Amino acid sequence: VTTLSDLDTPALLLDADRLDANLAGMRRRAADLGVALRPHVKTHKSIDVAQRDAAMPGPITVSTLREAEAFFAAGHRDILYAVGIAPHKLDHVSRLRAAGCDLKIVLDNLETAHAVAAFCRTRAVTMPVLLEIDCDGHRSGIKPCDPSLLTHAGVLQQGGALLTGVMTHAGESYNCDSVEAIVAIAEVERAAVVESAAMLRAHGYACPTVSVGSTPTATYARHLDGVTELRAGVYAFFDLVMAGIDVCRIDDIALSVLVTVIGHQRDKGWIVTDGGWMAMSRDRGTAKQRRDCGYGLVCDTTGRALEGMKVSDANQEHGIVSGHATAVDLIGRHPVGSMLRILPNHACATGAQHDRYHVVRGTSLAVVDEWERFRGW
Amino acid sequence: VTTLSDLDTPALLLDADRLDANLAGMRRRAADLGVALRPHVKTHKSIDVAQRDAAMPGPITVSTLREAEAFFAAGHRDILYAVGIAPHKLDHVSRLRAAGCDLKIVLDNLETAHAVAAFCRTRAVTMPVLLEIDCDGHRSGIKPCDPSLLTHAGVLQQGGALLTGVMTHAGESYNCDSVEAIVAIAEVERAAVVESAAMLRAHGYACPTVSVGSTPTATYARHLDGVTELRAGVYAFFDLVMAGIDVCRIDDIALSVLVTVIGHQRDKGWIVTDGGWMAMSRDRGTAKQRRDCGYGLVCDTTGRALEGMKVSDANQEHGIVSGHATAVDLIGRHPVGSMLRILPNHACATGAQHDRYHVVRGTSLAVVDEWERFRGW
Repeated sequence: VTTLSDLDTPALLLDADRLDANLAGMRRRAADLGVALRPHVKTHKSIDVAQRDAAMPGPITVSTLREAEAFFAAGHRDILYAVGIAPHKLDHVSRLRAAGCDLKIVLDNLETAHAVAAFCRTRAVTMPVLLEIDCDGHRSGIKPCDPSLLTHAGVLQQGGALLTGVMTHAGESYNCDSVEAIVAIAEVERAAVVESAAMLRAHGYACPTVSVGSTPTATYARHLDGVTELRAGVYAFFDLVMAGIDVCRIDDIALSVLVTVIGHQRDKGWIVTDGGWMAMSRDRGTAKQRRDCGYGLVCDTTGRALEGMKVSDANQEHGIVSGHATAVDLIGRHPVGSMLRILPNHACATGAQHDRYHVVRGTSLAVVDEWERFRGW
Repeated sequence: VTTLSDLDTPALLLDADRLDANLAGMRRRAADLGVALRPHVKTHKSIDVAQRDAAMPGPITVSTLREAEAFFAAGHRDILYAVGIAPHKLDHVSRLRAAGCDLKIVLDNLETAHAVAAFCRTRAVTMPVLLEIDCDGHRSGIKPCDPSLLTHAGVLQQGGALLTGVMTHAGESYNCDSVEAIVAIAEVERAAVVESAAMLRAHGYACPTVSVGSTPTATYARHLDGVTELRAGVYAFFDLVMAGIDVCRIDDIALSVLVTVIGHQRDKGWIVTDGGWMAMSRDRGTAKQRRDCGYGLVCDTTGRALEGMKVSDANQEHGIVSGHATAVDLIGRHPVGSMLRILPNHACATGAQHDRYHVVRGTSLAVVDEWERFRGW
């Protein structure tokens, strides 16, 4: 049996027990809300991870066409590419659709609507399109109920593209500092698409899909009346940013990075490890939260959080762990060669630094499996 | 001929002309200083990139044993692994050495010195070791001229390991806010190892190698008397952090990310692109500099900087470009489907998000080659 001490470090660990609980939790939540769940696989980019969800293969959301390729090859057909389509990517989308993938695209401007319409006309193909709604000023999207929604719908319909609905993402929910704020933004997110869909329907566009999603709003929305599907991704692993806004507990975080102590700076109370930003990513998502977790919180090898200890700084292949009570303790308890587990600020970013998950379960040190992840575009 | 418009985006671009000039510049600099150059390949992790340097294959520095493996396989023998060795990695080091790789390791504490000595005794092998000196309190290392240097040397020698020298890295040079400050820290870096080597020699340890290095100090050191070799990495590509401390010009930066405009938020003056943090990395190294470049500065496809434009925010696969004068200009000049090139804050971090370089030359839009890079540990 392989154990943690057999792994080369730094190494990405995934606690399958926590993963399973997180996946099941969001399935229950979607059922309670009465909506379909369309998980966002950008967080894990792994067929093996997706398959832990009993409802898979099933509808998914992707952030790249590479993800669409990989998940289609693994048996997923119903795929939403949730980043505004660039016109030169339509050819790639069309190849996937011709191969049998029910790939849907997203757009938020007339230039792209015209490009999609022209593509469909020229190629004599149809292409399902969702209009992106900007519910919170966070990034892309057309303003809710903006009259131009009808122009977009008209352009698409005339071109032979298929307007299948509206979608939005409450990106600002990550910046909320209270559950009440998340509840409020969840309602803003819901209303933005439900009202936009109503407007389109009032003008004769069927608009069957009404899609919302972010892990915080999915967790705390009071209701999702009028919404048909929920997209969320980071809930599979959770992370310190989510814990910092009370969307999960620290003990729900399924992802960590195993590192080895390579030295100490006794006078400063530092433990130096081989887990730098290459292993953790440069994400500092907790920097503006109530609790700044540096480059990650520190656990022992069983996954138990070590009170007050965090990765306070990181170079490419060096992590500096500080916060321990006394320097004597520090070196005695964490000698050179001993290992620690670091919880990530942002699971999507930390995962992306690695090619595989070493699978563990609960507090056991046994490595029970190895799951590949992919990357690129 | 492939041109930029044939590439899927986001895509990593490398200007071979700038790369060649940067590589040659540091070779000249090392020659002027009278020291050997041991380039740090952690920046590019690419055999193809290394081979642009006329002096390659030759001595190199690595940050992971994966790099040591890959570069040894490509004909490099003289390799310094410049991250403090973890005892469980000695077996891997020893396998590489047995295969003919002259791999040298680094340590900064007695626990590791004893572990290396015991390993050498037990396996009846020798292993060249450099003691790491902490010249600026940045991360690892023994204080310059600390009496414990002699204890370390003694432990290593008795075990059959080979003390070959001392090394340091002035990591704080990245935080300097003037050339004068870099000049000063370069002298601190030089003195730290030269004086430590003198102390070891006075006690009978030959200490042939005296190694310093960082791109800023390599660029501005007044002299390197007593130093035998220079390590530096990011000079191959340069980046906005280096430009921000006057170590290079913006026009020396060889690395960029090609992105496509996917939409606009007209009221805010935003261009939305498909180049998010997955393509740029989460590195915000310029955040504390005089000029905060966000997630990168924006150029046209020929590499010409667009005054005042930067990636002001980034999601996983969305970049928000702002800073353009007027919204009319913005959409007129940068319509959906057009491409931009983004200069990175930190070349090591941005490069690590990609698997290959698309090679360009100067202002030409032709893609003349594709070079692989690797990652992992």
